[in-house]
Amino acid sequence: MKKSMESYFINQFKSKYIGDDGAILDGKSVVVQDAFFENIHFKREWFSLDEIAYKSVAVNVSDIYSMNATPQYGLLTVAIPKNYSKSDLQLLASGFKRAEKDFKFEIVGGDTISNSKLDISVTVIGKLRGKPILRSGAKSGDFVAYTERLGSTKRDLEKLLKGRRVDRKSRFIKPQLQREFIYRVAKYINSGLDISDGLFSELQHISKSSRVGFRVTKKIPRQIGCSGEEYQLLFTYPRRNSRIIKAIAKNLGVKITVFAQAIKGRKYQNRCNPHHF
Amino acid sequence: MKKSMESYFINQFKSKYIGDDGAILDGKSVVVQDAFFENIHFKREWFSLDEIAYKSVAVNVSDIYSMNATPQYGLLTVAIPKNYSKSDLQLLASGFKRAEKDFKFEIVGGDTISNSKLDISVTVIGKLRGKPILRSGAKSGDFVAYTERLGSTKRDLEKLLKGRRVDRKSRFIKPQLQREFIYRVAKYINSGLDISDGLFSELQHISKSSRVGFRVTKKIPRQIGCSGEEYQLLFTYPRRNSRIIKAIAKNLGVKITVFAQAIKGRKYQNRCNPHHF
Repeated sequence: MKKSMESYFINQFKSKYIGDDGAILDGKSVVVQDAFFENIHFKREWFSLDEIAYKSVAVNVSDIYSMNATPQYGLLTVAIPKNYSKSDLQLLASGFKRAEKDFKFEIVGGDTISNSKLDISVTVIGKLRGKPILRSGAKSGDFVAYTERLGSTKRDLEKLLKGRRVDRKSRFIKPQLQREFIYRVAKYINSGLDISDGLFSELQHISKSSRVGFRVTKKIPRQIGCSGEEYQLLFTYPRRNSRIIKAIAKNLGVKITVFAQAIKGRKYQNRCNPHHF
Repeated sequence: MKKSMESYFINQFKSKYIGDDGAILDGKSVVVQDAFFENIHFKREWFSLDEIAYKSVAVNVSDIYSMNATPQYGLLTVAIPKNYSKSDLQLLASGFKRAEKDFKFEIVGGDTISNSKLDISVTVIGKLRGKPILRSGAKSGDFVAYTERLGSTKRDLEKLLKGRRVDRKSRFIKPQLQREFIYRVAKYINSGLDISDGLFSELQHISKSSRVGFRVTKKIPRQIGCSGEEYQLLFTYPRRNSRIIKAIAKNLGVKITVFAQAIKGRKYQNRCNPHHF
């Protein structure tokens, strides 16, 4: 399905909750849900079953972190091919259990069914730590920045699509989440979200939700701006917080790249091809 | 995958939350997640897209009701075949919106992706109305009963599997949920759950969780005890509440069938074949 068809379907629902990485319930809980389907998000031969399970959770926890929340509970729909062996199931379960431990939350339910391929849908419920980070908070004049280096996940995906191998430490296999950085900058930034579809795509989200445009101060190559599944943080902040944000980044050893400034009114248009293969 | 393999996978997780229709969080919220996958739970030609969307939600709301909770929020993972048209998407969305209205909850998020077939996973979050209804509360001496008549969903599934048609009002197409009855008997019953896998299968759940056996007082034919996707309530209650429960049933026009008594210790073994086709 084309991206436009997905949007068409989503636009049938008018909930005020829809539009951020997660929905904020009762002002204090955050709930997110992301699917991780075979031949849509991954090919079986790219990952071990343990890695698939782990990543399916990590992409959800990334949404929880990027809203300034702590994961608490998880639910899993796991659709498993009929021919999987007990040791396959053990591997899958061990990936989920590793994620439980790393992300300090508890799997409390879900549904396990047999299927023609391995399809996973994860729900994570978390608790806000303070002010939520939203897409809609960017102000004209804000600096726009992202964490770490981007581009490696696109490069690794392209390698995998050509049948080549990637390092097991690749961020495409195991996303690097910026929990500490997000928690510490949360009160100093005006907007933010994790880079799942690609930097340019997320910029468009901020543009639309905050009704701002961007003046680019450092050109971003397509190879970087169109790289999806990065799970780094894109964020905007007022000039007065530059020093504290840079101090936090330095203190944690997190690289940040400031590349644009938010400006009044102009709509930003993402020019990448859709990320999914 | 055989039922035993599903159990094997689930048994890898040791959460105290797992074991009932839903998980109770913080003593007041209930969260449930059930999948509704093409060629696993339904065949495309059996349902309209509107009916598929509606049923995928109804089976989840059934779990919320049967724990004595009110649905509040829903999240949908909807994996949609690439060739679906805009009007197909509208039909799907209209089923979800009809469910939102009927069950008085709000869809607040989820994930929409393209896929080889129509696979849906739904999460519903609800609020407990009072004491939760659990599988583990049955006491020796309790009467065991279920609501309405069972067997029609199995009969209709068998028809559909033979390529025959069923009435659009079939409970296999549109489950009948016992919200009012459940809410009103909640404080008078010791245990209960909705009949999703079949009466005999649910009896086994109560037997295991409550450590009771059953003395059958009215023989239940296999055609009734093995009928899945009924979504009627199976429940147990102490003799002293017989009169009030019968009065509530009569008042609401709900038929109840008392067919067994819980007894100490003997383990009950379900003898049906797995429900899924």
